[in-house]
Amino acid sequence: MALSISLPRLRSHIETLSRFGRNPDGRGITRSCWSPAHEQARAWLLERMKDAGLAARVDTAGNTFGRLGGDGPTVMTGSHIDTVPQGGPLDGALGVLAGLECLQTIHESGIATRRPLTVTAWSDEEGRYASLFGSRAFTGKLDPRQIPAMSSADGERLVDAMARAGFDAREAPKAKCDPRALSSYVELHIEQGPHLEAARIPIGVVEGIVGIRRQRLVFIGEPDHAGTTPMARRKDAFLGAADYALRAREHVVKKGSGRSVTNFGRIELEPGVSNIVPARALLLQEIRELDARVLARIHRECLALAREVARRRGLRVKVEPLSRTEPARCAPRVLAAVERACAALRLASRRMPSGAGHDAQNLATVTHAGMLFIPSRGGRSHRPDEMSDWRAIERGTNVLLHTLLDLAG
Amino acid sequence: MALSISLPRLRSHIETLSRFGRNPDGRGITRSCWSPAHEQARAWLLERMKDAGLAARVDTAGNTFGRLGGDGPTVMTGSHIDTVPQGGPLDGALGVLAGLECLQTIHESGIATRRPLTVTAWSDEEGRYASLFGSRAFTGKLDPRQIPAMSSADGERLVDAMARAGFDAREAPKAKCDPRALSSYVELHIEQGPHLEAARIPIGVVEGIVGIRRQRLVFIGEPDHAGTTPMARRKDAFLGAADYALRAREHVVKKGSGRSVTNFGRIELEPGVSNIVPARALLLQEIRELDARVLARIHRECLALAREVARRRGLRVKVEPLSRTEPARCAPRVLAAVERACAALRLASRRMPSGAGHDAQNLATVTHAGMLFIPSRGGRSHRPDEMSDWRAIERGTNVLLHTLLDLAG
Repeated sequence: MALSISLPRLRSHIETLSRFGRNPDGRGITRSCWSPAHEQARAWLLERMKDAGLAARVDTAGNTFGRLGGDGPTVMTGSHIDTVPQGGPLDGALGVLAGLECLQTIHESGIATRRPLTVTAWSDEEGRYASLFGSRAFTGKLDPRQIPAMSSADGERLVDAMARAGFDAREAPKAKCDPRALSSYVELHIEQGPHLEAARIPIGVVEGIVGIRRQRLVFIGEPDHAGTTPMARRKDAFLGAADYALRAREHVVKKGSGRSVTNFGRIELEPGVSNIVPARALLLQEIRELDARVLARIHRECLALAREVARRRGLRVKVEPLSRTEPARCAPRVLAAVERACAALRLASRRMPSGAGHDAQNLATVTHAGMLFIPSRGGRSHRPDEMSDWRAIERGTNVLLHTLLDLAG
Repeated sequence: MALSISLPRLRSHIETLSRFGRNPDGRGITRSCWSPAHEQARAWLLERMKDAGLAARVDTAGNTFGRLGGDGPTVMTGSHIDTVPQGGPLDGALGVLAGLECLQTIHESGIATRRPLTVTAWSDEEGRYASLFGSRAFTGKLDPRQIPAMSSADGERLVDAMARAGFDAREAPKAKCDPRALSSYVELHIEQGPHLEAARIPIGVVEGIVGIRRQRLVFIGEPDHAGTTPMARRKDAFLGAADYALRAREHVVKKGSGRSVTNFGRIELEPGVSNIVPARALLLQEIRELDARVLARIHRECLALAREVARRRGLRVKVEPLSRTEPARCAPRVLAAVERACAALRLASRRMPSGAGHDAQNLATVTHAGMLFIPSRGGRSHRPDEMSDWRAIERGTNVLLHTLLDLAG
């Protein structure tokens, strides 16, 4: 019989971790990176790593590592223990605790792998201060000059948040790894979408992670009196933004890859009062797509569309780029290892893209990286009722276990 | 030669009043009712009333009166000295200072009118705490039970603001007038729209003041992950609100009276972050129209449209009424007096509605009320560059003078 993990122990760990930062009244878990709840969770995790027989340490970017085995390039797994505000118990936490469970199972089995194994919790994956912060630091993508300006949407500076948690943000770039110390990276995560559940397939083998363009579009009109200015004379920035959003959504659906998505998560109007025509509309847009050429094209076409809508309505539009990540392809040898593990455990799998960003996209730039997904109930995530079946969690963790054994030799 | 006002004195008063609450760097005038700038302006106005030979007083709702003549029903004129944030020098101020100038001119001319004359500055016309507050109190429309809840958009309570200015908000309803003490009311105001300037007509004779419906529409969808949820499965509250706003605008333009207007001055999305599909969109809408039946119909039709848009997009919508004023018709005998004054001064005039709310709409419920407009440069108002030509101001004030002499007998 194949080696397998302990679901009762994994479940106990998932349930315990979910208590750090839990909100009252069913409003989920708020465990932002560097917050007291997060730091308490980190301390708890370090203890669990030691219990599991791992050598535990924290780097200057706040990444938490637990290592099993001796010297040489390591096979890594992991995810993150921070959450979005009012998030659920599995996004991130599953990948870290499943990785811990796999290493503990291997350690207790007495199996000696050729390569050492490491489980990691990456800092601020959810980007309260800076998206994928820890894995960016680890893979050498952190620009030290940008650190002083990194702050949360509500204005808290990263340097202050890290200082309160006992870290010096200026030291974070020193977390940069030596790629020769890495052999491969594989991350287990919930799908955060509906496809696996709908198809009743237990394992998604991630082919790649979408690239994301984020931008703020500022439509600019005139702040006229909303009672006395004839409708035909108004230069209404809000109606321009509304028109653009509806058209850009159709454009991405019809002219994208079929899996391209866009979202308008925030809009603010100025002056923002009932009796003045909106003079400015600040619209936040993101576009995600796995194919780099398609992403570049639909992004460019959306900007042209914004200018066209603005011109037709007598408005101006400014575009402020906010962030840009390129699509990341997963390594064929990691995909093959996941698929061998599925075959060995007689579990069906399907190749699929990841529509969400993950630390694996940064790891893919320095080592052979891949991911596997398990189904999300109702496709839900980033919300209090995010969950997966315990049986699905057990299956996914066993696939991770055998993938790690395969990669570690 | 007909009696006429002193433009140099009026101009000096307008320019002096514009210094109370003036912002630096051309950002207009911010003189919210009850603010220190407003109370300093009130003290200055009371002195000017006394200089002009008027009996000055302030009522419990903060309305400031200057009276000329003895007992009996009075002919009133006036407007307000509060401004919107970053407003201009004429909205309200013109009507008060032109009225003061007329009464001073009459007093100095030695003419004894049959009826006494009163100039008034009504409190909080712009509604920082409560729209048309002073004239509502004066005309008996202030519900004492609502006073404790009256507050500004930024959360300051009316009771606190009035207390700081030396008033007791609970006493405001005592400002209610005896309608038998009133003979008529006429108010001079800038048009705040482009029609008079475009037609090169110096005087607008206001037939009536539009009614206004204000409401908050809350579109309710699902807070799904913006990367992993297929576009077709999303229930995006923002796109629902955007779709509704564009359609409601077209509906009001095409199915209204031809002069009906609507505005969406504010929208907020929840949770309001880039990577979550908006689950709630709170959209502020107002509709204005002079014809009460047309107003009721297009308001009803917009609400039906909101429900239809929500249903088609798999959303729910809740409607929260915020305020409701009915259209006010001006009194034929006041219109006729204004038109006689225009004829005597050989000035062209045009009858027109007022698209903005004014204290005259409250006065119209207790006495014979009317308004006259002068052209606004570029149709602009509620902004720092709000202005009219001094010649237009002089003409309008002379029309007001002869209208008051006509009404006062």
